[in-house]
Amino acid sequence: MKPFKLASREYRKQDTIIEINTGDKPILIGEGYCTVIAGPCAVESRESYIDIACFLKSAGVRILRGGLFKPRTSPYSFRGLGVQGVDIMLEVRQLTGLSLVTEVMDARDLDVLYDHIDILQIGSRNMQNFSLLEEVGKLDKPVLLKRGLSATIEEWLLAAEYILSGGNQKVILCERGIRTFEPYTRNTIDIGAIPLIKQLSHLPIIADPSHATGKWQMVTPVAKAAVAAGADGVMIEVHQEPDRALSDGKQSLTPENFLDMYEQVAKVAALNGKVLN
Amino acid sequence: MKPFKLASREYRKQDTIIEINTGDKPILIGEGYCTVIAGPCAVESRESYIDIACFLKSAGVRILRGGLFKPRTSPYSFRGLGVQGVDIMLEVRQLTGLSLVTEVMDARDLDVLYDHIDILQIGSRNMQNFSLLEEVGKLDKPVLLKRGLSATIEEWLLAAEYILSGGNQKVILCERGIRTFEPYTRNTIDIGAIPLIKQLSHLPIIADPSHATGKWQMVTPVAKAAVAAGADGVMIEVHQEPDRALSDGKQSLTPENFLDMYEQVAKVAALNGKVLN
Amino acid sequence: MKPFKLASREYRKQDTIIEINTGDKPILIGEGYCTVIAGPCAVESRESYIDIACFLKSAGVRILRGGLFKPRTSPYSFRGLGVQGVDIMLEVRQLTGLSLVTEVMDARDLDVLYDHIDILQIGSRNMQNFSLLEEVGKLDKPVLLKRGLSATIEEWLLAAEYILSGGNQKVILCERGIRTFEPYTRNTIDIGAIPLIKQLSHLPIIADPSHATGKWQMVTPVAKAAVAAGADGVMIEVHQEPDRALSDGKQSLTPENFLDMYEQVAKVAALNGKVLN
Amino acid sequence: MKPFKLASREYRKQDTIIEINTGDKPILIGEGYCTVIAGPCAVESRESYIDIACFLKSAGVRILRGGLFKPRTSPYSFRGLGVQGVDIMLEVRQLTGLSLVTEVMDARDLDVLYDHIDILQIGSRNMQNFSLLEEVGKLDKPVLLKRGLSATIEEWLLAAEYILSGGNQKVILCERGIRTFEPYTRNTIDIGAIPLIKQLSHLPIIADPSHATGKWQMVTPVAKAAVAAGADGVMIEVHQEPDRALSDGKQSLTPENFLDMYEQVAKVAALNGKVLN
Repeated sequence: MKPFKLASREYRKQDTIIEINTGDKPILIGEGYCTVIAGPCAVESRESYIDIACFLKSAGVRILRGGLFKPRTSPYSFRGLGVQGVDIMLEVRQLTGLSLVTEVMDARDLDVLYDHIDILQIGSRNMQNFSLLEEVGKLDKPVLLKRGLSATIEEWLLAAEYILSGGNQKVILCERGIRTFEPYTRNTIDIGAIPLIKQLSHLPIIADPSHATGKWQMVTPVAKAAVAAGADGVMIEVHQEPDRALSDGKQSLTPENFLDMYEQVAKVAALNGKVLN
Repeated sequence: MKPFKLASREYRKQDTIIEINTGDKPILIGEGYCTVIAGPCAVESRESYIDIACFLKSAGVRILRGGLFKPRTSPYSFRGLGVQGVDIMLEVRQLTGLSLVTEVMDARDLDVLYDHIDILQIGSRNMQNFSLLEEVGKLDKPVLLKRGLSATIEEWLLAAEYILSGGNQKVILCERGIRTFEPYTRNTIDIGAIPLIKQLSHLPIIADPSHATGKWQMVTPVAKAAVAAGADGVMIEVHQEPDRALSDGKQSLTPENFLDMYEQVAKVAALNGKVLN
Repeated sequence: MKPFKLASREYRKQDTIIEINTGDKPILIGEGYCTVIAGPCAVESRESYIDIACFLKSAGVRILRGGLFKPRTSPYSFRGLGVQGVDIMLEVRQLTGLSLVTEVMDARDLDVLYDHIDILQIGSRNMQNFSLLEEVGKLDKPVLLKRGLSATIEEWLLAAEYILSGGNQKVILCERGIRTFEPYTRNTIDIGAIPLIKQLSHLPIIADPSHATGKWQMVTPVAKAAVAAGADGVMIEVHQEPDRALSDGKQSLTPENFLDMYEQVAKVAALNGKVLN
Repeated sequence: MKPFKLASREYRKQDTIIEINTGDKPILIGEGYCTVIAGPCAVESRESYIDIACFLKSAGVRILRGGLFKPRTSPYSFRGLGVQGVDIMLEVRQLTGLSLVTEVMDARDLDVLYDHIDILQIGSRNMQNFSLLEEVGKLDKPVLLKRGLSATIEEWLLAAEYILSGGNQKVILCERGIRTFEPYTRNTIDIGAIPLIKQLSHLPIIADPSHATGKWQMVTPVAKAAVAAGADGVMIEVHQEPDRALSDGKQSLTPENFLDMYEQVAKVAALNGKVLN
């Protein structure tokens, strides 16, 4: 018997489709759709964030990423604007109509974020932060649950189970690479996890080729591979000037490269009968 | 400076295209092509091998796989027909015109295999069997070099370098999954290795979704992902009755599933501008 | 240049010795000492906890472990007594004079735990829960920082750096096994990490052979190995009836096996010139 | 049921003790003994090999290592003196009475090596070179079988099973570190494998702290740990001038450091009731 219940395909045969209300036409995430989430690693300044948001909106993107609280390996690295950045995100949302996703690292920040953020992201380092999982499990807000660096498929689905069993059914899984012995890339994307999750669970699954590879040159081929394997979308880091990014510059696409990636992913999605949104 | 030379993109900017002479139209392996190699894990009997070969030929496949010497973890498992199977392969080749690939585990078998086999496969367990690499490096025969279970990209290219520096320029790399902590699948396919190899080297690279996943249900999505990521082909295990296979039954496609896989991979290849052969 | 500063041997040449005040003779943790921490995985009931505490005290142990908040992979497993268990720990402390270590999973529990617990443990799943690290960094209380399942040595020392840079210099590192491909054991203990940490850092390091192996039969040899390699102590799970333990029974020593382990570890410690405490 | 038979503790309850005939007092390898094998990574020249051999003999060592055929990742690295080095080894053996161990990479070299070498080593890269395992399985000569870089305990014992089932009962296992994500050390020694092998099998097991760590500073603590965990010996790389070694210099002990290591290991062995030889 599988240890996860609510997350299992046996419990719910039909694919879960998560709806993001936008005022306008809702965004649907799950089987049959291919959702492209994009944006910079971190919100760095009001100007640059508005600028990239407008570009992405014009390209057709409907969900904008941007980190306020950055989990950095070293305490001496740039760790995000924190609560001060919320106003910037809010302004961009009003200006562009884009939906927002940002990472939450501490349950005590949920009060501030809840009203302004459309999707709460749980990062890979917090995939087994069970206190945090329980808190977002109590909310009525989509949660993007990244796979832990060395989490098995079963542990990942059990982390989802923490959220589902708390009452929140809106969980989106995100494969973002696992840690292996290979030093050339930041992580190793586990593409097989995508069809496996589709078989074991009814939950939507997307991929994050930026973190999975750590190299912008690999982002487009890996994004296409993820969608070809059945992913319900991709999350992509984009920056106007990757060389000047305060974090993750090496894995960020320029606007130009983003457009090329978007076009190619759209074709693969169409081949798999998926509607881009 | 990179430790590999002859295998590097710097040494040879143009993609290496390997030609398999067939009497008929040659088979080309490399950038711009998508080569589907298929067949059973092992040659089990004359009848079954002829049968599956005829099916694959009718489906459009031009290169047939089939193991004579099987590297098995346990000495008590079925280890292949050995030299006795050569006649069966030869008969099938004459009958169908298919080209043949089989694994060589011992330099002393090269004499027997050389005349009858079109591509010599070096298995993952022998990727750093340097004596064997040196021997196939002396031959004028294409070598399919599988990545070792825990080989880094650099070690893999250095294994290719052993063959290239011996004088044999016809090396085809094959990503077949690496060993990670994940227990659900047999191995974890490193899809990122495909664009990475394309960047670092001029050599062709194909993928083996059967060994990489160990589960037939995952073979088609992973094959599509590999080709979407830029692979120059796939190698697929097919068996008339996977449940009765003497080895690798769980990862073998039935003829029916093979046709479905083939059709889908063809579409992804076309999207990437690759000619199927 | 190394990315960690306050944790580095260059910053502080002298080994850090952490003092646990006990009312009686203080307990010293660090180079020159071998500290044996023991107790059940979780506090299960008042009676059983008093019982095992008295046994361990009589054996010479001075620091008692016992989980109140258990980070469990599945939400359906026993997750500890929580805050209700604090009174039991407190009673045992007063009764026996033993010092206490317990895991903290949520910054909001620190208020309750601070007064009653002598060492706060950060578990492996929270090694990069940076919010929690920052909170314990503000306290004047020893922190036992377990290595994450797939944390590199550098990431581990940077997690310590979060605590040190917050102002708390009392960090004890704990090697508890890393995740590898090997399925026979729960984890693979990285014994080499012990001399490596001693070279790179001035902080004390102990080992947790119970979690590292997951099998009680391996606990004694691995505990001896850790101390032979230079560890400043070991943390051992002990249970009166391992078969009935609510968690981690398979890796818990019986009292009888504990005594044998203790005697053998004491001899290895003496060989390395370490005072048992 | 376990897949290995002849290697299992169930098949043979009594520990296997392997005897190396020396003309003089035989060397015994297995439970109850601690055998220190030492020498340079490779035989580099007649003079240096005689020199280090005399030093090691005077220190009490009875088995000398030295590679003739070096399995190097790159074809451009120093790959050993090959067959030409056999005479040097032979001369040193006659001069000093030391027994010899060297790696065999190719079955075709066995004829030359058989008469002059006391223990044939199968390196980690060839642990699943089944042709080679079968060949040494036919001989009446001890085989030192190193664990593959990413071999599970079960695969390792099945590789031993290949040799045992061929008729050669003289197999010595050697833990030499596995490949993990940790970049600080060359490999991660799996100390837990030692008590595990003792439980699962009757075969002797030794450790190779030099290859396991890749850093000479870690060799002594890891050697002590291995013996504390129950290893029947250690194999240590020693070089007069590590900085000038043609291979593995960074992990080689100087003669002075070797003496210190030897003395400390001897004490741990005595604690475990093991006779040094």
